[in-house]
Amino acid sequence: MRKGILERYQEFLPLTEKTPLITLFEGETPLIRAEKLSEELELDLYLKWEGANPTGSFKDRGMVVAIAKAKEEGSRAVMCASTGNTSASAAAYAAKMGLKCYVIVPHQHIALGKMSQAVMYGAEVLAIQGNFDQALAIVREITEEYPITLVNSVNPYRIEGQKTAAFEVCEQLGEAPDILAIPVGNAGNISAYWKGFVEFRQAGKSGKLPQMWGFEAEGAAAIVRGEPILQPETIATAIRIGNPASWRTAVQAAQESGGAIDSVTDEEILEAYRKLARLEGVFCEPASAASVAGAIKMRAQGKWPSGLKVVCVLTGNGLKDPTTALESVEVKPKVIPCEKKAVLDVIKAEEGLCHETV
Amino acid sequence: MRKGILERYQEFLPLTEKTPLITLFEGETPLIRAEKLSEELELDLYLKWEGANPTGSFKDRGMVVAIAKAKEEGSRAVMCASTGNTSASAAAYAAKMGLKCYVIVPHQHIALGKMSQAVMYGAEVLAIQGNFDQALAIVREITEEYPITLVNSVNPYRIEGQKTAAFEVCEQLGEAPDILAIPVGNAGNISAYWKGFVEFRQAGKSGKLPQMWGFEAEGAAAIVRGEPILQPETIATAIRIGNPASWRTAVQAAQESGGAIDSVTDEEILEAYRKLARLEGVFCEPASAASVAGAIKMRAQGKWPSGLKVVCVLTGNGLKDPTTALESVEVKPKVIPCEKKAVLDVIKAEEGLCHETV
Repeated sequence: MRKGILERYQEFLPLTEKTPLITLFEGETPLIRAEKLSEELELDLYLKWEGANPTGSFKDRGMVVAIAKAKEEGSRAVMCASTGNTSASAAAYAAKMGLKCYVIVPHQHIALGKMSQAVMYGAEVLAIQGNFDQALAIVREITEEYPITLVNSVNPYRIEGQKTAAFEVCEQLGEAPDILAIPVGNAGNISAYWKGFVEFRQAGKSGKLPQMWGFEAEGAAAIVRGEPILQPETIATAIRIGNPASWRTAVQAAQESGGAIDSVTDEEILEAYRKLARLEGVFCEPASAASVAGAIKMRAQGKWPSGLKVVCVLTGNGLKDPTTALESVEVKPKVIPCEKKAVLDVIKAEEGLCHETV
Repeated sequence: MRKGILERYQEFLPLTEKTPLITLFEGETPLIRAEKLSEELELDLYLKWEGANPTGSFKDRGMVVAIAKAKEEGSRAVMCASTGNTSASAAAYAAKMGLKCYVIVPHQHIALGKMSQAVMYGAEVLAIQGNFDQALAIVREITEEYPITLVNSVNPYRIEGQKTAAFEVCEQLGEAPDILAIPVGNAGNISAYWKGFVEFRQAGKSGKLPQMWGFEAEGAAAIVRGEPILQPETIATAIRIGNPASWRTAVQAAQESGGAIDSVTDEEILEAYRKLARLEGVFCEPASAASVAGAIKMRAQGKWPSGLKVVCVLTGNGLKDPTTALESVEVKPKVIPCEKKAVLDVIKAEEGLCHETV
């Protein structure tokens, strides 16, 4: 039934007859109509649910290409810097292909779930006392000098794989949307989606192009501010990046498409994060909610007219960061004795439905 | 591209024209060939990867049916007892449908990720000072007396939805496998798979039936021991159940199919859990690994001949329980200074590949 992206989109990818067509069944992720948010925002709003990928984030699309090519080229080890999602993905595909994997992450700024993934998949995890941008600088140097393949998104195969999400959006809607809203961290994904939309139209598979709107976290909004940020800070650890590697192509995507790069605050991110779970039943990671926070902000500011067809990319699964989830809700689980009466007391004390019915 | 299970398997489900065809895109989960474990165990081994479901476990298949029927029947609130996966799923679908959701979980015996899901999806979470079996007894009583729909697997719609996984296995392999191996906790899922295989064959969509092999955790192996266990204990919290609600149908499934219910130790579970991640790139939750631990045990004991086509069900995503993951690995992340030399020192100190190449 399902195929991996190497098989499904072979004609659009830089594969040869020697490329191993590996897969963990990345891609074919759901496009979910956000019924309640559509109504609230007066938009035709869809969620591209990338948390359904094998390691729970969009990174798997690019990583399967990067790891297959590394294997094809005879590499025996790969390395990346990561805020967590890239390392999980690299570790999983490296395990599948029998490659050694080194990941460098910022100490104490990686979500618990992501750390558990990298170690379980058997990667060598090095937590540096520094941030993502410093980690990336180090792995760039090392992979230039030693026979280890760099699998960050500066590896061009990563962007090639990631662009397939744009193909799927077009296939799922029957056409490109009016607007594609997406979180911006290292800025590779917005560049990849734009490449995907452009190539799909060139191939005659879609008739139009969307506006590309990228949203950085305010405390890490280098592109919006126009200069690198030495100490980026945001609760959205996946986009806690102060010097995006794909800065230029991201700006180009926004400009060419008639969109923009903007920013959202941590409060706006957390509000969108909770709404997605409570209204739509979709639990994404905080960084993912930046796309929906952006849509809410643009509507409030009147920058997007009502009625537009908007796809918000939800880049990763909320299970990757259970700590932030539990800290972000006001209502905590109640610990009660093991008896029927204690349960009934809570229900009866509640307002609304159960007050009436019980 | 993708459909939910209500649409895909309508003819096999108890739907009416009034049932809302809701979906969070449950089902259509990958069947992954376990290349390395197949070789190691001399089996043709596949993994039914239920962690790819919307809330990260197989529970979504049954819950979408239970919640759609609750809505159809005019219910405004649902309730369940849960070791964590059922509560996550109930909370998500209740949120999607605008129903109030109460979940009763055993205090301090629910994995971190699962707790974060239930609270984020907006359920009222009550942690009782007791275990799952006690929680189930309480919710059974309350839902009999008050107008709240019980959505545990004693709700027959749950089993109806869960049986669709068996349909998919037949479709993905082109036929039922020789053996279906599955973790057993409350014993609803093995019953559901068996029902699915039987119905699919009756409908002429598959030609044979598999042997059903269920594996309990040794510290909670009520069926194997032949009596309820008052204080079940296992690291696999999802199957920490001492008095399975679907005991009878599970035994029947095993007997009718020529299979059996057996048990595996926590050590065997953790070993399979690590192997799945490190060899196959699949990170499941501990309870899920009971199916693979069972396969390893049966092969070691010579109970299964080599060459059989075996499907092991991996019931849930490893991200639901990051704590157990981090505690179960020997190699911890290394914290190092933010400099190239520190990274190189680690790589150079390693044996094998990088010692040679660096």
